[in-house]
Amino acid sequence: MTNPVSLRLSTFVAGTEGPWKIQEIRSLRGESLASAKKLSTGPAGSPAPALPAIWTLEGVTSNERYTTRQEKDELVAIQPELGRPESTCAALIPIRKNASWWAMTQDERHQIFAEKSHHTAIGMKYLPAVARKLYHCRDLAQPQPYDFITWFEFAPSESDSFDRLLAELRSQPEWSFVERETEIRLTRCAA
Amino acid sequence: MTNPVSLRLSTFVAGTEGPWKIQEIRSLRGESLASAKKLSTGPAGSPAPALPAIWTLEGVTSNERYTTRQEKDELVAIQPELGRPESTCAALIPIRKNASWWAMTQDERHQIFAEKSHHTAIGMKYLPAVARKLYHCRDLAQPQPYDFITWFEFAPSESDSFDRLLAELRSQPEWSFVERETEIRLTRCAA
Repeated sequence: MTNPVSLRLSTFVAGTEGPWKIQEIRSLRGESLASAKKLSTGPAGSPAPALPAIWTLEGVTSNERYTTRQEKDELVAIQPELGRPESTCAALIPIRKNASWWAMTQDERHQIFAEKSHHTAIGMKYLPAVARKLYHCRDLAQPQPYDFITWFEFAPSESDSFDRLLAELRSQPEWSFVERETEIRLTRCAA
Repeated sequence: MTNPVSLRLSTFVAGTEGPWKIQEIRSLRGESLASAKKLSTGPAGSPAPALPAIWTLEGVTSNERYTTRQEKDELVAIQPELGRPESTCAALIPIRKNASWWAMTQDERHQIFAEKSHHTAIGMKYLPAVARKLYHCRDLAQPQPYDFITWFEFAPSESDSFDRLLAELRSQPEWSFVERETEIRLTRCAA
């Protein structure tokens, strides 16, 4: 018998099998991840892909930490679901923030996130083209290599737009607290 | 080989052994916990107490979710460490909040926590008499029966004061979102 796992837990397994082909893995900051051919994603506890996994990341979806009600209402109105047929491009971007970030209080982190870096507003500009889902890893019982994982999906025609989204976010003051960031670009394997 | 665990993970094991004698377990709301004689606490991965454990709770210490810089500076100036020799009384109070709480955005939760319920200000009034440590359980990979665990320590002479602290907190609007709360009162076993 295996231990039950949270319904909010997801795993990202890189190896030789999976519905997503890994096109590139590159490090923006800090140590990278080992190269692999395919990625499978899904709720933890779903059928495991064939071993060996080259690396596995885990995270839980959770309550919002910075979004305000006004922002959430706007997001809910325009943010798309994952899994749109035309969204054959994806990116998996795990990030770890440094000790200075985590030593700050909520108001200090929110000020950098929102007032100095306009994080949500930047993301909003690229909706509904870029679908996005955030997973938290920092407070899992087992130590994780990153604090957050974000999964993005978009149509090939939106690739340039997605690159601009990343460039905009990475130019913000919030990113000075990022000590490890890896970008994994993927395309959906033909069915 | 066991999996490594987060240095911020702590376990609370109720059973027949441990340095804390359980005086009472009572439910304030929702299902209670099974009765047990002793409690041991410590970092996960530390030597396990003799089996069988009657119940085990786990949580991680994490970044503050609501505390402002001004509040934190005040707290740091007056909050005591755990383990003071005279603090032979303790309370372990796990709480679960309902779906409405978690569906709120950060600004909505903060408004209830701070502006309507004065949570931090109430706790501050009882410092340094009552030492306190908060653990988060909601985002662990394995589902937990509560969202938070708070551990309190105080001298026997402060018991009435501690009861007033609990009564004050439980009378606040924030507590209308608490759907499960269990209070475990303990005394330290003589060495």
